[in-house]
Amino acid sequence: MSTLQAVKYSRGSLQVLDQLRLPHEFHYDEVATSEEAFDCIRSMRVRGAPAIAIVASLAHAVELHNGSCQASSASDVLSYIHSRLDYLKESRPTAVDLTNAINRLKARTNAVAADGKGPEEIIRTYIEEAEQILDEDLQTNLSIGAYGADWLRDTVLASPEKKISVLTHCNTGSLATSGHGTALGIIRTLQARDLLSHAYCTETRPYNQGSRLTAFELVHEGIPATLITDSMAAALFALQKDKMNIAAVIVGADRVVRNGDTANKIGTYQLAVLAKHHGIKFIVAAPTTSIDLETETGEGIKIEERKKEELTQISGAIVRPDGSVDATETVRVATADQKIGVWNPAFDVTPHDLIDAVVTEKGTVVKNVDGQFDFSGLLPERWQQVVAR
Amino acid sequence: MSTLQAVKYSRGSLQVLDQLRLPHEFHYDEVATSEEAFDCIRSMRVRGAPAIAIVASLAHAVELHNGSCQASSASDVLSYIHSRLDYLKESRPTAVDLTNAINRLKARTNAVAADGKGPEEIIRTYIEEAEQILDEDLQTNLSIGAYGADWLRDTVLASPEKKISVLTHCNTGSLATSGHGTALGIIRTLQARDLLSHAYCTETRPYNQGSRLTAFELVHEGIPATLITDSMAAALFALQKDKMNIAAVIVGADRVVRNGDTANKIGTYQLAVLAKHHGIKFIVAAPTTSIDLETETGEGIKIEERKKEELTQISGAIVRPDGSVDATETVRVATADQKIGVWNPAFDVTPHDLIDAVVTEKGTVVKNVDGQFDFSGLLPERWQQVVAR
Repeated sequence: MSTLQAVKYSRGSLQVLDQLRLPHEFHYDEVATSEEAFDCIRSMRVRGAPAIAIVASLAHAVELHNGSCQASSASDVLSYIHSRLDYLKESRPTAVDLTNAINRLKARTNAVAADGKGPEEIIRTYIEEAEQILDEDLQTNLSIGAYGADWLRDTVLASPEKKISVLTHCNTGSLATSGHGTALGIIRTLQARDLLSHAYCTETRPYNQGSRLTAFELVHEGIPATLITDSMAAALFALQKDKMNIAAVIVGADRVVRNGDTANKIGTYQLAVLAKHHGIKFIVAAPTTSIDLETETGEGIKIEERKKEELTQISGAIVRPDGSVDATETVRVATADQKIGVWNPAFDVTPHDLIDAVVTEKGTVVKNVDGQFDFSGLLPERWQQVVAR
Repeated sequence: MSTLQAVKYSRGSLQVLDQLRLPHEFHYDEVATSEEAFDCIRSMRVRGAPAIAIVASLAHAVELHNGSCQASSASDVLSYIHSRLDYLKESRPTAVDLTNAINRLKARTNAVAADGKGPEEIIRTYIEEAEQILDEDLQTNLSIGAYGADWLRDTVLASPEKKISVLTHCNTGSLATSGHGTALGIIRTLQARDLLSHAYCTETRPYNQGSRLTAFELVHEGIPATLITDSMAAALFALQKDKMNIAAVIVGADRVVRNGDTANKIGTYQLAVLAKHHGIKFIVAAPTTSIDLETETGEGIKIEERKKEELTQISGAIVRPDGSVDATETVRVATADQKIGVWNPAFDVTPHDLIDAVVTEKGTVVKNVDGQFDFSGLLPERWQQVVAR
């Protein structure tokens, strides 16, 4: 079975998996213009910060390759590219990865234009730079997978012939990135190296990224996997028999701050407390771009609260009387008393003392003898900048 | 607003709340015959072991009161009553409370018949005994509420003018009993005594007893309350500000064994671990009929595993495009990948070391200096029987 990809690209062609139809339908949309990319991002058919940046960058590369730019002077080509990027940026103005990608593409095209290169060369440079963004993201995820699998092999594998079972939370996989994923990337690498016994994924209420997306990815790739509700984690940890003997909890991160405190999807903190109680390793997988050295501790992280309907209603595909699923008809249903008050924080903060390792594409960081994470060796230049302030 | 009642009874009349329509519709069915009670129980319109026993016992009392028994001899009346009870028992053969109630009603009517009493007296005795079952169940719950509120007032109330916030799991309220409830009964009593700051209830995946039933009860009675997902408990416990400063977690029990280990709805164990981590009291509320002195530890409790569709599908009332709920149309939708493997244990076991108090209708039991629960003082007769074996 082919590896799951949110984005399929070859020069001149981009296809994007429609995540709104998941897990009931598996359908790629052809995205050949900036307008189609804008619509795809705005309608949430693609989600996940890296995936959004990649779709926007590559959609413009495709239209450029197919001759959308009619300008004949270098400066007109530059104006055309930059205006298309400014338009694409509005598809999700708050996405940092998208802004970073656009800034990078503008700087690179500006540089070749400043070198006196002509229209064709500017266009070729844009296309190559956009392709580079795709390649780098995949490479980042593959590196995280390798470093994480190495660390687990060296730290929790009882003996070379044994395999390990892990639990993950939310969705950190191919669907949110160019491929492979971060926390789920480590699980993929464990599976590829024949080190994985079994993967458990939590439902991840209230938005069900675990049951909708992670479960879909695991099924798609034939990774031995089981879905549990968020409330079953401790009961699972307590069992410790056969494939249910969980060696590690592996999660992604929305932000890792200077002391290692980590903001991630709601429910992460509780898994960390439960892992500690049961002597299970707790690992954060994150690209170095998610490490925020400016913020000293988790107290500096503001937590977004979301609307109550995420808890009191849910969307799904109609189940017919015979038990089959009608993938073409999605409806919204009320599953709780609509008048009850709701608290719905999107994220929580896991203190660094509950985290055993932070796995990045540059390596795995564990705590020093004082129980402190120190990212200065991993990110020496950024560390110097922060310290100098 | 009137107190929520699963069952409304006055001599000659029984009304039962249709729980299948909750929380979207609030409708009582008239239940005037054993056949109607059978149907009501079998179709799950009433649920909860005590409530089922009460509906069956009282439905027959109503038909007797209304002259359903045409027999003229004492022995024929007795045969009639016993055959109706045997029929009712088949509505839920595994329900222990129902069996206990039926055995009690048979024994009592046998006793008056043996005393030489006539048809009218046997019928009057049946009716009074059935009403007694209703009254005793309510009294049990009110006592649990009082003992639990006393213990919390004496143990966690910082100062007399302060109030406390609590979290509960699953549904242990009026809907499962004759009224008031067990864990939710303690919350009701705290509210009645003006000791309650705020009640939080978990969604209680996968069957959503918290969001469907407990949330409904709390809204109905105007108790200040907030719904959270099961994954948010630790984040809530960590906040400790204002009404979010949780003083205790209060849960019910399916079974409390001799050493205090407690089987209850899946997710209970995890809440106990999280409560311990945050220094929050953890209280089990259970009638003494739920204490099983024959089983020594939680290892002796078998955990039922339920079907995967409880996690991968859910039923709800259609939400219209304008956001209103169409309570008349309930549909089943798929919310997860239907091909994912699922682990779905219905219960888990909380070890006694994580439990601070077991609140019963006879009093509150805490651990002795050795950290052990001792129910011998609470249940001296049953204790002697077990020890004698």
